[in-house]
Amino acid sequence: MSDLNQAIELICRGADEVIKLDELESKLKKGKPLRVKAGFDPTAPDLHVGHTVLINKMRQFQQLGHEVIFLIGDFTGMIGDPTGKNVTRQPLTREQVLENATTYKEQVFKILDPELTTVDFNSRWMGQMSSADMVQLTAKYTVARMLERDDFAKRYKSEQAIAIHEFLYPLVQGYDSVALKADVELGGTDQKFNLLVGRHLQGQYGQDPQIVLTMPLLEGLDGVQKMSKSLGNYIGIDESPDEIFGKVMSVSDELMWRYFELLSFRPLSDIEGFKISIAEGKNPRDVKFLLGEELVARFHDTAAATAARENFIARFRQGEMPEDIDEVTVTGTGEALPLAYVLKEAGLCPSSSEANRMLKQGAVKLDGERVESGVKLSDGTHVVLQVGKRKFARVLVKTQ
Amino acid sequence: MSDLNQAIELICRGADEVIKLDELESKLKKGKPLRVKAGFDPTAPDLHVGHTVLINKMRQFQQLGHEVIFLIGDFTGMIGDPTGKNVTRQPLTREQVLENATTYKEQVFKILDPELTTVDFNSRWMGQMSSADMVQLTAKYTVARMLERDDFAKRYKSEQAIAIHEFLYPLVQGYDSVALKADVELGGTDQKFNLLVGRHLQGQYGQDPQIVLTMPLLEGLDGVQKMSKSLGNYIGIDESPDEIFGKVMSVSDELMWRYFELLSFRPLSDIEGFKISIAEGKNPRDVKFLLGEELVARFHDTAAATAARENFIARFRQGEMPEDIDEVTVTGTGEALPLAYVLKEAGLCPSSSEANRMLKQGAVKLDGERVESGVKLSDGTHVVLQVGKRKFARVLVKTQ
Repeated sequence: MSDLNQAIELICRGADEVIKLDELESKLKKGKPLRVKAGFDPTAPDLHVGHTVLINKMRQFQQLGHEVIFLIGDFTGMIGDPTGKNVTRQPLTREQVLENATTYKEQVFKILDPELTTVDFNSRWMGQMSSADMVQLTAKYTVARMLERDDFAKRYKSEQAIAIHEFLYPLVQGYDSVALKADVELGGTDQKFNLLVGRHLQGQYGQDPQIVLTMPLLEGLDGVQKMSKSLGNYIGIDESPDEIFGKVMSVSDELMWRYFELLSFRPLSDIEGFKISIAEGKNPRDVKFLLGEELVARFHDTAAATAARENFIARFRQGEMPEDIDEVTVTGTGEALPLAYVLKEAGLCPSSSEANRMLKQGAVKLDGERVESGVKLSDGTHVVLQVGKRKFARVLVKTQ
Repeated sequence: MSDLNQAIELICRGADEVIKLDELESKLKKGKPLRVKAGFDPTAPDLHVGHTVLINKMRQFQQLGHEVIFLIGDFTGMIGDPTGKNVTRQPLTREQVLENATTYKEQVFKILDPELTTVDFNSRWMGQMSSADMVQLTAKYTVARMLERDDFAKRYKSEQAIAIHEFLYPLVQGYDSVALKADVELGGTDQKFNLLVGRHLQGQYGQDPQIVLTMPLLEGLDGVQKMSKSLGNYIGIDESPDEIFGKVMSVSDELMWRYFELLSFRPLSDIEGFKISIAEGKNPRDVKFLLGEELVARFHDTAAATAARENFIARFRQGEMPEDIDEVTVTGTGEALPLAYVLKEAGLCPSSSEANRMLKQGAVKLDGERVESGVKLSDGTHVVLQVGKRKFARVLVKTQ
């Protein structure tokens, strides 16, 4: 496979859409480093691995020798909520923006090469833009095309108000590509419209239109809904080695492949090899170990990764944990659910009182460790519960 | 009638709509001079009496002791056509704007009291507005409400493009009212939407909403279409005394009352008196003389007005011109129409050759003066033609 084809394969790995592939090819053929832009929200960052799908793609561009621009969209953040309706969306100060940028760097430089990353702020050009420039910018897009954006279309149809400034945000994001002379813009599939606005505006400003590359939104640990803090189905990149490793081990064998594609840096050929070896009888758990170790090593270090695996094995002594464990979601009200209630709801004990009896006897293990009564499980907790020798369930806790 | 009621009667004279009358009343009751705003296009002014309907209203506010702001909307004019599609709409320079302002003053100070008139430019505040302020401004209005504006609604429905900057213009015009703290904004009926945007924005910025007063668009000499240069049915305020007087005399007796209401400064009670005296047998022409003299006096002086009337009478010696003359529109192709063709089309001669014969004989008069063949009448010409002693027609020429 030629270098060009290898590059294209790496760039397209896991991507939802590349607009347009032939233009990407011609840009790559020129042999010059591409300017690859991805925009981030200026509010306090607290990343989970779902966010890293995009950052991993940025890293892949770096590996291919391209220039990556980590763009913090602080211009709109410093405006706050101009309708004044959202009290929680106060304007950010310059200090807050810089502080958040520092936090971002601490987190993303676990993945990106700091030397090859430009961190920039769109207030650099938007802050200087006059109202007359803004009129010029808004002349380059039509109302009808803006109303084609999914969420606008739905709101307009259902007569929910769209304030006019909401039309300006995609134009500002698009203009960022003009200001940065971006060759490529990366974003989630939900960003496709805005990314295409950038493509359009670059043409209007006499630039080559950027390549739009969208990445899928990563499914959470449940394998169904997208990974998010509020759903509790996430792996935070600041979590402890044991937490990260344990959460990786909790995903289904099917979801594991999705995570390999989007979160692992192993070549696709390795991953194909794993699939074959499992088909030939290898325990999927051992392959999952590799993914867990890779992620712990990325967000901590290799030693921590080895230790996390050993801790995990020690907790579930070989043979004690069956390979297939039922996945159960337990729902309840209140801030956290009593463990006895969860054991009953998960079908591990016939009643809460029986569950309490087992807890008193020391017959209940949580992620391989003995627990006593009085423990409560908060929203989003995702653990393996064991009652006696043979009853297991992988439980996700949701409170309302 | 109380002073307040007299003021309200004068303010409402000829107005299409006052939004809202009770608010106007409370503002007047405070006894403070009101800030009365009217916006004008920054492109080269060449006013006709249709434009003066609004300026007359400004003068009436001045008579009542209020402060009148003649606002030149140069901010958008200095942007030009941001879509770049309209080559004739080049951005105006600061010098051109100031030059046009001087021309405006020369023209409008024939009506307005210079001492009581503030000439202002919206670039004064819009030029300083940042893109962030623009976002704030656009947050205060919704897409749906903007699409309710007649022309936007039609274009959106018929899938004609509306560029997003077109949504900014009504907001800029509305913001002008905020910047000026306007108590009243005047405009043509076609400006009602934009004037209401100003009302809305003032509320959003914590100000008392302005009174919106719309004036009708004046009908042209034909009494049907609105007065406009391109239709040729206008009285320019820079025209000669004889032209102005002659054009006033050419309007129908019915349209005369409309012109009295909107162009004359005579009290409405005088005008009612004229109507009664005509009903009692007075020649309407003599009343039309008064209107013609008033307008010539306004745009030239009293001596010129008297002279114009005398010239007119000399041309149409008493008794020669019947009181009711048919009004005819003659249409043709080319830049100007041969007089013989017009005479035939107007039904004054049975054929062009007969018309040419009459012309050679010196039997044709144009506005009371003998004309010879070879004369051509250009688009918009509005004259009284006479063939022999008894055949008359008032002719409007239109070319295609």
